[in-house]
Amino acid sequence: MKVDGKEMRPIWLKKEDDKVEIIDQRMLPHELIIKSLDTVDDAIYAIKEMCVRGAPLIGVTGGFAVFVAVKNSPEGKLDWEYLEKECQKIKSARPTAVNLAWAVDRMVAKLRDAGDSYDAVLDAARDEALVIEEFEVENCRMIGQHGMPLIKKLSDQKGGKTVNLLTHCNAGWLACVEWGTATASMYTAFDNDIDIHVWVDETRPLNQGARLTAWELGKHGIKHTVITDNAGGHIMQHGMVDMVIVGTDRSTHTGDVANKIGTYLKALAAKDNGIPFYVALPSSTFDWVMKDGVKEIPIEERDPDEVRYIQGLLDGKLERVLVPPENSPAKDYAFDVTPSRLVTGFITERGVCGASEEEVKKLFPEKF
Amino acid sequence: MKVDGKEMRPIWLKKEDDKVEIIDQRMLPHELIIKSLDTVDDAIYAIKEMCVRGAPLIGVTGGFAVFVAVKNSPEGKLDWEYLEKECQKIKSARPTAVNLAWAVDRMVAKLRDAGDSYDAVLDAARDEALVIEEFEVENCRMIGQHGMPLIKKLSDQKGGKTVNLLTHCNAGWLACVEWGTATASMYTAFDNDIDIHVWVDETRPLNQGARLTAWELGKHGIKHTVITDNAGGHIMQHGMVDMVIVGTDRSTHTGDVANKIGTYLKALAAKDNGIPFYVALPSSTFDWVMKDGVKEIPIEERDPDEVRYIQGLLDGKLERVLVPPENSPAKDYAFDVTPSRLVTGFITERGVCGASEEEVKKLFPEKF
Repeated sequence: MKVDGKEMRPIWLKKEDDKVEIIDQRMLPHELIIKSLDTVDDAIYAIKEMCVRGAPLIGVTGGFAVFVAVKNSPEGKLDWEYLEKECQKIKSARPTAVNLAWAVDRMVAKLRDAGDSYDAVLDAARDEALVIEEFEVENCRMIGQHGMPLIKKLSDQKGGKTVNLLTHCNAGWLACVEWGTATASMYTAFDNDIDIHVWVDETRPLNQGARLTAWELGKHGIKHTVITDNAGGHIMQHGMVDMVIVGTDRSTHTGDVANKIGTYLKALAAKDNGIPFYVALPSSTFDWVMKDGVKEIPIEERDPDEVRYIQGLLDGKLERVLVPPENSPAKDYAFDVTPSRLVTGFITERGVCGASEEEVKKLFPEKF
Repeated sequence: MKVDGKEMRPIWLKKEDDKVEIIDQRMLPHELIIKSLDTVDDAIYAIKEMCVRGAPLIGVTGGFAVFVAVKNSPEGKLDWEYLEKECQKIKSARPTAVNLAWAVDRMVAKLRDAGDSYDAVLDAARDEALVIEEFEVENCRMIGQHGMPLIKKLSDQKGGKTVNLLTHCNAGWLACVEWGTATASMYTAFDNDIDIHVWVDETRPLNQGARLTAWELGKHGIKHTVITDNAGGHIMQHGMVDMVIVGTDRSTHTGDVANKIGTYLKALAAKDNGIPFYVALPSSTFDWVMKDGVKEIPIEERDPDEVRYIQGLLDGKLERVLVPPENSPAKDYAFDVTPSRLVTGFITERGVCGASEEEVKKLFPEKF
């Protein structure tokens, strides 16, 4: 999407010198730092240290990492043993990231198909990394195409007055490649001259909303306001929200939605105030096995210091300050599950459907 | 309540030298700083700069400020003109704080009654300030007495296993004098050997939960865990909360509850999971006129920088870090209103009642 009027992605291949570059998201929103992934170790570092984050983007970075591995083959020669080892290293950078293993395995299969010439394998690696990238872009673009009419309808109902959307965490292009998932409909609406304004939940503990979503939206020129996670209920009660759109880390095909901690509270408030609550996702995020998300989806507990310390800018430097008493324990639950009864619908690359097995089946019959 | 085993209040009169001292709450939880209120200006500064905060404590501080005014009378002589002027100054330190004006007016009436001798007026001022202080203490003590059986019942139901409570913001002794309101039942239960654990919402934007409630509970020896405001729904969904108790800044006699922003979201989650949601308050916090809290109670909007900047400890110093992009706007709604249908009951100094006009009337018939 646009950053100060210029098209930008969180990762890209520079055609002129075949180099892979990324935005180092750790420094956002306070600094826009570009890093070059010259070696496999650079790519692994970027994934591990969360210079890149978000399932789709981690997958794409994995694809480009394999391309870098081929490019850096010893003596510029094809060496399968070396390549397999590098691919294993890449896959283990974040072992729980499904997209990463998926992308690397897909790359390896394509390289094997390309034959025994180093140049053919290098070309295949470059091509396939770009294919994976474009696959993610296309999924998100379609989510935006299908979600935009929902916003358009609200805009028409309001006689063209500003449509107020609310989102939680960052399910934007920084987590994908272009468009994002939750934000796809917003960017598409904005680019089609629909007047929108987005309430951005800061999203404690890591503040991905305040740091990343606010930055993305602002750089693209979309009106937005940062609020505390506590404020959503109040503004919904007072008619200041027309629709909620969030992303998801995993949703059951029965309609339960695991997403960043706090999503469930917003869904409750939306329900209580008759506000539509949509979840945007590519179908790869559906869990086709689990039936009861609240009971079955495991919820990651992270380092309590993420709750106790908050990072921000002080005198031009990123610093972490301690908020509670030194000795007070804290707990850091990273996700929660919103039951399907609170979800108005899913926005997918194939269209919009209700949050139930029956409705999801209509869009993805081949999965049932 | 106890701080490292020693009884402490947020304000006190030192018998030996007639000096008023306070805890400077701005530095909590990282430093326990005691300040002396030697002049009326000291007291006004303490109220304005929020060294003391919380409606009851502001009232008590106002009472002691009048005592200080009498003590510092020019040439140790009775001078009504001087006293009236000082009282006006004190009342205007925080003009919207009802308790402040109430306490100062009450002090002035008592001084007038005390006659024309300077010593008699000084004694009356000291006595009345202490009476106001003890009045607040007694209210909160009674709230604890009435609320404790609710916790006891849960403890019995669980066969003595830990009762998990959740609270939002700080409605503790730091906001009152002793016991607090939301925390009164917790302290009373703990002092009666009931095994409790308190989930402390950090309470963005100003983090009064993480900073003050966690400090209070920890210093008294009560088990507690700091969580983000986002986490409450998840832990309620998974059986980790037995009861919610919060305070309130204003509640209608019909049962609607204005409290720190985010309270409404916790009430929704409690309702959704069948968890009792209680509001603790002295009856002075009831609004006997308003009927529809959501529509009628005005919600204060504060400086958006409270959302954008977060204060905490860095290298032994309190610092403020900026989280969202420099140019992203923010909104800071300070309170929200929880409709009566989500409130299980009120815990007052006269007993526990349902959150409805009918039920409140049973406890406070003289107000209707």
